[in-house]
Parts: sequence; structure tokens; C-alpha cells
Amino acid sequence: MNPEHLFKQIAFIHEIDKVKYILRKTRLFNSDRNENDAEHSWHLAIMAIILAEHANEPVDVLKVVKMLLIHDVVEIDAGDIFLYDTVNSHSNTDAERKAAERIFGLLPVAQAEELIEIWEEFETGKTPEAKFARAMDRLEPLLQNVSNNGGTWAEFGVKFEQVLEKKSIIQQGSETLWAFAKKLIEESVEKGILKAE
Amino acid sequence: MNPEHLFKQIAFIHEIDKVKYILRKTRLFNSDRNENDAEHSWHLAIMAIILAEHANEPVDVLKVVKMLLIHDVVEIDAGDIFLYDTVNSHSNTDAERKAAERIFGLLPVAQAEELIEIWEEFETGKTPEAKFARAMDRLEPLLQNVSNNGGTWAEFGVKFEQVLEKKSIIQQGSETLWAFAKKLIEESVEKGILKAE
Repeated sequence: MNPEHLFKQIAFIHEIDKVKYILRKTRLFNSDRNENDAEHSWHLAIMAIILAEHANEPVDVLKVVKMLLIHDVVEIDAGDIFLYDTVNSHSNTDAERKAAERIFGLLPVAQAEELIEIWEEFETGKTPEAKFARAMDRLEPLLQNVSNNGGTWAEFGVKFEQVLEKKSIIQQGSETLWAFAKKLIEESVEKGILKAE
Repeated sequence: MNPEHLFKQIAFIHEIDKVKYILRKTRLFNSDRNENDAEHSWHLAIMAIILAEHANEPVDVLKVVKMLLIHDVVEIDAGDIFLYDTVNSHSNTDAERKAAERIFGLLPVAQAEELIEIWEEFETGKTPEAKFARAMDRLEPLLQNVSNNGGTWAEFGVKFEQVLEKKSIIQQGSETLWAFAKKLIEESVEKGILKAE
């Protein structure tokens, strides 16, 4: 093996340490601090392993886990955009594409290509794996907001219809989890931790 | 499906949020703060995906990734023990076993049993997957200490022979990565960031 091959892999491993500094808007389940992208990705990967049986279609769990572990790596260059941001679009901006090419491009060519492809598959959201992975990405902050008496919903004045619309993507990955999520959202209005209007 | 089944899975997902609060001795690659167990587990899982080709024996990558994602969950109850701690043993204490039973026991029975088995397999370190996963667990802090001008080696007065002994476990998972790691350790002595005696 060419030693450069391993050096490139180590350079990538070193670079992605920066994911641990990217703070999300959402707070941890007990509300006392913001979650970072590495913690978020770790949690989603475990959720996918635990909840895979609820996917609408059979999924390749390793592929889902790979997607979730690396889906936010592009934010090292492109930054995190809040789900309810009405100015900036989250998905597939030029900045994210450039970031994917630079960061995954640190790896040996074949691995770089594989991870860029997996990242694109996640962003496009068309395959069973991408649909299920995206369901995890929408479910975790919902659980956090419910656990945090409204969390970012209260903090940023987000309302029932917006939450229902943004979270409905869960349905594409799992009808079972969507039924559960919808009930949580409706109960949140009843409890007064999410505004109806 | 019995709704209790999903509620148990959600209870586990909620509980493991606590992993994000468990601080390790090791600092992030650029040295400014300690790493927590969730960030550490995320990093190891990606390392395993990237470096799997260097395993001594073919490994089931999904199993390795599961091991690494959940290997520190027991520390919610049992706490983190420093690799060079000479008083407390890290591996398979009663406290860790009780923690595994309580925390994985939040899940539906079949999943609880599967994850306890995987956690035990990692701790025992006999299968190709466990050997490779343990190699990741030893390699990451080595990369961090080299990146941090000695990091915990300097902070806790750890010496060359101790590092060589503790890190030699990498060899069981990957001869290639051990050759690389050994060179890093030797170069660290030459650079003066690890004491020879």
C-alpha cells in the first residue's frame, strides 16, 4: 500500500474534528446547552439502528448509518442553517457542494467518491435509506423540543402548522414514526408548549 | 405492534443523551477542550468506516460501528476511567455490567439482549470486530495527543513504555495501523512531546 493512502485517511479523520464545534439551534434533551453536530450525528446513527424496523421499506442499515454520521460534515465550511430559517435554504446549496468536494476530497479518490455519493443521496432524499435517514434527522429535534418544554419552538416563535409541515417528511421514511410524531406535535399544542396559531 | 415497543425504544433514545455530558481526559484535536463520549463515539465510528480495509481479518463493518457507537453508554452510570489509571480498572467492572443491564434494559427485550451481547463482545475483545473496534478506541486519543503537543501524556506524565504497552492492542486489530501508530509514538519521543523515561 502506498503510505499516502493512509495519510489521506488520517488527514480526513483530523479535519472532521471540527464538526464538534458546530452548534445547532436545538438544545440537548434536558435543555441546558446547545447540541453540536457530532453529538447530533452520533444520536441519529443510534436511533437508526434502534428504529430501523419501523422503516416503510427494508433499508441497508449500514448505509443509513454512514449517511447520518457524515451528513453534517459539510457544515465545517457551510455552517448550520436552522430548519425554520425563511431566508437561507438548507438543502444542496453551492456552499455545501463545494464543502463536500473539499472535505471528502481529503480522502483517497474511491472513498471520497463513495462518501460524496452517499451525502448527495441523503440530500436528494429519494432512496429508502435517504428517506429513513431524513426521518431520523427530523425526529431527534422534535423529541428534544418536547423534552425541553417547547425548546426552539418557544425560543423562535415557531407554530403548529410550520412544525407539522417540516416534520411531515418523517412519513416518507416511516408511517409508524410519523403517527407517533404527529401525536407528539398535537399533544404539544394541548400542553401549551407549541402555539396553535 | 404493541405501542409499548416504540415507547421503550424512545425511552432508551432519551436516556443516552446523558452520554453527551461524560467528559474524557483527552482533548479535541486542537486542544482547547475535553472531548465527551458522544463526540468520541461518533469519531470512532467514522474511523472504522474509513479504515476498515486495514483490519487484519475481514470485519462486519456494521457490527464494528454498532460496538463503537454504544461502547461508552455504560459510563452514564459507571463513569469514565482514564486509560493510564493505575487504581481503577477500566474493563468489565461490576458497575459497568450493571449499567449495561439497566440502560440497554430500557429497550424491548430482543434489542436489549443484542446490544448487551455486542457490548460484551467489545469488552472481551476476542472477535475480529471487537479487535478492530478496540484498535479504533486506542488510535483516536493517540492522534489527539500527537496533534496536541503531547496532550494527556504531558498533562499526566505518561511515558513512552506505558504508551507503547497500552497502544499495542492496536496490533490485534490491524498490523498496518499498528506500524503507523508505533511510528507516531517513536516520533513523539524524538519531538520531545513524550518522555522516553
